[in-house]
Amino acid sequence: MPIKANNPGLKSWLDVSPDSDFPIQNIPFGVFLTRDDVITIGTRIGDYAIDLAAMHQLGYFEGIPLTDDIFLQDTLNDFISDGKKTWRLVRDKISDVFEADNPSLRDNKEHRDIILFTLDEIEMKLPVYIGDYTDFYSSREHATNVGKMFRDPENALLPNWLHIPVGYHGRSSTIVTTDIPIHRPKGQTMPKGADAPVFGPSKMVDFELEMAFITTDANSMGESIPVDDAEDYIFGLVLLNDWSARDIQKWEYVPLGPFLAKNFASCISPWIVTLDALQPFKVDSPAQKPAPLPYLQYSGQKSYDVHLEVAIQPENAAESVVARSNFKYMYWTMAQQLAHHTVNGCEINSGDLMGSGTISGETPDSFGSMLELAWQGTKPISLENGETRTSIQDQDTVIMRGYCLGDGYKIGFGEVRTQLLPPLA
Amino acid sequence: MPIKANNPGLKSWLDVSPDSDFPIQNIPFGVFLTRDDVITIGTRIGDYAIDLAAMHQLGYFEGIPLTDDIFLQDTLNDFISDGKKTWRLVRDKISDVFEADNPSLRDNKEHRDIILFTLDEIEMKLPVYIGDYTDFYSSREHATNVGKMFRDPENALLPNWLHIPVGYHGRSSTIVTTDIPIHRPKGQTMPKGADAPVFGPSKMVDFELEMAFITTDANSMGESIPVDDAEDYIFGLVLLNDWSARDIQKWEYVPLGPFLAKNFASCISPWIVTLDALQPFKVDSPAQKPAPLPYLQYSGQKSYDVHLEVAIQPENAAESVVARSNFKYMYWTMAQQLAHHTVNGCEINSGDLMGSGTISGETPDSFGSMLELAWQGTKPISLENGETRTSIQDQDTVIMRGYCLGDGYKIGFGEVRTQLLPPLA
Repeated sequence: MPIKANNPGLKSWLDVSPDSDFPIQNIPFGVFLTRDDVITIGTRIGDYAIDLAAMHQLGYFEGIPLTDDIFLQDTLNDFISDGKKTWRLVRDKISDVFEADNPSLRDNKEHRDIILFTLDEIEMKLPVYIGDYTDFYSSREHATNVGKMFRDPENALLPNWLHIPVGYHGRSSTIVTTDIPIHRPKGQTMPKGADAPVFGPSKMVDFELEMAFITTDANSMGESIPVDDAEDYIFGLVLLNDWSARDIQKWEYVPLGPFLAKNFASCISPWIVTLDALQPFKVDSPAQKPAPLPYLQYSGQKSYDVHLEVAIQPENAAESVVARSNFKYMYWTMAQQLAHHTVNGCEINSGDLMGSGTISGETPDSFGSMLELAWQGTKPISLENGETRTSIQDQDTVIMRGYCLGDGYKIGFGEVRTQLLPPLA
Repeated sequence: MPIKANNPGLKSWLDVSPDSDFPIQNIPFGVFLTRDDVITIGTRIGDYAIDLAAMHQLGYFEGIPLTDDIFLQDTLNDFISDGKKTWRLVRDKISDVFEADNPSLRDNKEHRDIILFTLDEIEMKLPVYIGDYTDFYSSREHATNVGKMFRDPENALLPNWLHIPVGYHGRSSTIVTTDIPIHRPKGQTMPKGADAPVFGPSKMVDFELEMAFITTDANSMGESIPVDDAEDYIFGLVLLNDWSARDIQKWEYVPLGPFLAKNFASCISPWIVTLDALQPFKVDSPAQKPAPLPYLQYSGQKSYDVHLEVAIQPENAAESVVARSNFKYMYWTMAQQLAHHTVNGCEINSGDLMGSGTISGETPDSFGSMLELAWQGTKPISLENGETRTSIQDQDTVIMRGYCLGDGYKIGFGEVRTQLLPPLA
């Protein structure tokens, strides 16, 4: 059944620039602080933020089974717990209310004044409380690049990589949204040729270009989710910058994986674009050889054509796009990741965040980290202002963007933008 | 300043058996469901559970700055956020109210009927909401044993191990408390000599004997906690059984660490024994050579003499103690773990759980996992009923206990008891 709100012919009575990430076909969900210092759940069309709590109070969601305070919360977790049927009803209703020919809100100035905000009137917040954060490692090109650099160029992929969507647990407490500066981490590193580690600020701070999906309550302990049902438990996606300190990582990560190299900060874009909104952009996945075990074999298309880019903006300078990649390059799909994650009975809850791992393509300009782009420092990246980079410098801002290209419209993710500050004293 | 409630001479007007884990000097904190189906925060003396919400409502904490509903909650997180000064005031007041000569509650039957429960009237719940769970790997003997078995017997310890309290992130959603059965996990393994992985129930389910500490809000993103302040942010400790599926672990863990091998279940004891209650049991730590980097160097004693044991109980049979160890064997202290965890600015919150890693001693009967006790299956462990084990079988119950021995009294942790059931269909 086609999803009503995805109809490419729809126009809104709100002004939407043709290159906006947020046409009426998008209808993402987020949390923001309003001019009245109230936290609310909302959506966005063009450059307007829409207060869903106010819409609900004014009766626009009549007929949809929602608790009174479902949108008057500081996270989306409870709404996400309501499940896919409710998400669709709400998204369709929003689409209907803002459709060009619907006068109900369009012609009601009093309601518009309560419901609509311009972007400078709001401050975006983290959209969910993240109970657990998992990060996968699902780009074959990224895993191969890392294997070539750190292990054996001839056997870059480890033996388990083509059989398992390899993943590990990350830290929830340091996940923040866009426009929140972070600090360069300090830590232990082992300099080349040294016989003892040293302590100090990391000298190799890097971004990782990722996408991440957000789940609803999926199972109880002991239960597994079949791969072909997995997408029913995915609410939507965001962009993820998985900040990494390469020198700390190199020294600490054997045998239990990255820890302090990653948990100083991870940043996500504030608007969750629903999996429903991404349905028109489904594409085939890379062929999987050898065939994965049966619990990872799925039917239909489960990859998504999302254009991605990373820019670096030095202080007081223009930004330079340093990488262009695509979410469709991922070898393992989200459905496979979620089926694998639960095959042992691991419980998944509303608001859990699951990162893709760095998304690299085949060409050097599509690599999703400075580690790969500058090939371990051997190929410095040139910026528009004449400077070069092999890693991120203090005061640099890293910007990630993502969008799908429809026929005459875009479904975009906005951006996640983070400035790196020096370490705290 | 000595902690009043720790006075070894105190006696309670409640009956306490001399070998109880919970004399009046303990006063742990937990969460339980009462006979009236109410969830409350409580403590325990002897075999009585004490409803702290009821005590508070009846005025017993007058003079201590506490919000009205601080104990009428389903987790201890808010109380833990109140900080060390408040924990001490509350613990001292409980000690005072239950001290043998204090008639206020002792002689008030009406209040006693509201405040006191026998253990069969309550059901213990998970004591905290765990935002983030970190597991360390801090026993030198355990790391050495694992290194000998899986890597190089001549260089069993990895190069970073003596410099870094190695740790990794675990999964919060599958941490449960005592008396909750779990299911054997299914997953991928690579059988010896096979050229492709297979899928099925794990054939090597194991326990790991650990302790874990629970933190209060310690810092904001970017800030670090100095090692000599770290214990101020530790509320207390529990026993932790970090269930592990060794065959799944072996195939999945390179390069990002254990994932599905661990996240099917981890179990903690329900009563949090405060760090204050453990002060009389501080001891010296193992010598650290080479000296760690300055941010990990501390003054004073920061190890704790906690006797630990693990028993296996087959279905319808008596239990057999299979290992006896001690928390004081840990090479890295909790203070060092917390200082290391935050040295990069990682934010620590109230209710975070940090496991020690498997606690093994020097002798084979003190090893903290079946992997080590049965040395990779080569030395089966004999049970009292004549059976042997190299790993945990379906229907087996694993029981962990811990206690400190004072002069004429014990400060104990009770137990964490978990039955392993077959996989769900």
